[in-house]
Amino acid sequence: MSETKVYLLDGGTLLVDGFQVFWNRGPGGEVRFPCYSVLIEHKDGRYIFDTGYDHDHVMRVLPFEKPLQTPEQTIPGALAKVGLKPSDIDYVINSHYHFDHCGGNKYLSEACTVCHTKELEACGCPQPFERLGYSDYNFSPDHAKERGIELPSEPELDIYTPKFETVSGDQEIAKGIWLFETPGHTAGHYSLMVELAGRRPMLFTADACYSQKSMDLMCVSGFHLDPTASIQSMERLKALAEKHDAELFYSHDWETFPNYKTGAAYYS
Amino acid sequence: MSETKVYLLDGGTLLVDGFQVFWNRGPGGEVRFPCYSVLIEHKDGRYIFDTGYDHDHVMRVLPFEKPLQTPEQTIPGALAKVGLKPSDIDYVINSHYHFDHCGGNKYLSEACTVCHTKELEACGCPQPFERLGYSDYNFSPDHAKERGIELPSEPELDIYTPKFETVSGDQEIAKGIWLFETPGHTAGHYSLMVELAGRRPMLFTADACYSQKSMDLMCVSGFHLDPTASIQSMERLKALAEKHDAELFYSHDWETFPNYKTGAAYYS
Repeated sequence: MSETKVYLLDGGTLLVDGFQVFWNRGPGGEVRFPCYSVLIEHKDGRYIFDTGYDHDHVMRVLPFEKPLQTPEQTIPGALAKVGLKPSDIDYVINSHYHFDHCGGNKYLSEACTVCHTKELEACGCPQPFERLGYSDYNFSPDHAKERGIELPSEPELDIYTPKFETVSGDQEIAKGIWLFETPGHTAGHYSLMVELAGRRPMLFTADACYSQKSMDLMCVSGFHLDPTASIQSMERLKALAEKHDAELFYSHDWETFPNYKTGAAYYS
Repeated sequence: MSETKVYLLDGGTLLVDGFQVFWNRGPGGEVRFPCYSVLIEHKDGRYIFDTGYDHDHVMRVLPFEKPLQTPEQTIPGALAKVGLKPSDIDYVINSHYHFDHCGGNKYLSEACTVCHTKELEACGCPQPFERLGYSDYNFSPDHAKERGIELPSEPELDIYTPKFETVSGDQEIAKGIWLFETPGHTAGHYSLMVELAGRRPMLFTADACYSQKSMDLMCVSGFHLDPTASIQSMERLKALAEKHDAELFYSHDWETFPNYKTGAAYYS
């Protein structure tokens, strides 16, 4: 049995307001936060958890988030750094379908995607205030049509890899790879835990918790569907970390991200 | 039958961030918004809908909202301007129990308060992120105790007038005075409509919609329990205004408030 390895693929940064990161608390003003994907080398295949944002898409739909992304920070570029190409990926897991978590799905030409059943429903029929997150109108062309929005002739963020599977409930999708339901940020949000031979399990919150400070303050991000559920999910992540002696890795933490291993370095 | 009259009692202003007024949209930066109460002279008695904030309480618990309130902008001061004293008020209706809507309840020594059953429950057991709004720990002393918060020896915001009544559902509480359920901002939020002999009905949104711009953008305020319900409540207010040919009056609209009649002037 080959040893499981985890690589973090740096995906560049975005600009938001401090009140969007720390809901109602701030302080306000521009903050630039990191985005990354998680590559898992596993005996059953290669998994990628989230795929970052697509630069061109952000420039077209949300240019005010001023994306900074080098070629090495795209999915093909980041995979090349670890000696892989997009077609080497067997499975995509999307924590949710906000644009900064699925922008690289389109490159993964051989993969089967796994997401929560409720998330696929939600991204096709978002609440009006979720429009900024579910930014690709191709996810819900009927809605776009109702609103008089012209769709690009080619879908820009094609989340649909060749195979697609929706699941619900907590799931051990492969030996030592766990999905935990953490709704609130979106309707069908998953966090992910990976068990490794040589260290504590890694528990990736995804957007159920943006940062260590968010957790310390129990402060939900400004982007959410249901803040009551969000708080419960943060409590759940704390409890899961304690139960499994897992280390929490946050999704958009400009303070802790510089300490994470990226590039060709890996956790095992 | 005496003619119903509506007075708007200017209650001063508070300072918040633009992202708190227009959730996730902003623009950010300090905005100063008005607070006011609605006095209804009715053949069945004198009603007051919401009672503004208590300056001393804000200075103790949320001084960063920099309250500006003259003596004429307190409940006793504003009532004096129309020739009344607090003991002349028969009924208080609280849209909800955020501090800037019940700060003057304590003056109303003869009144019976009416609020939504769910709101009274909620303010005694708020979500962690509702703490800024439900700012008086005396509403939920057990929670305060759990958190190690010391209660002031004298409750500062005593919401409990001598009589207290909770209701639910839409209600015509007196001829031509309607309460409409508009949850989302809080669990048990009510908006109020008053029918008048000489003009269109007045539909007071309270915090179900802060401003005309909020309605135009369908943009919920940053302070909310359930944004999906908030959107439905805004849609409901629009539909009610259309159905009853009512004019919408918003709760914290620094752009439209200067056009509202205040002081001794009234609507009838």
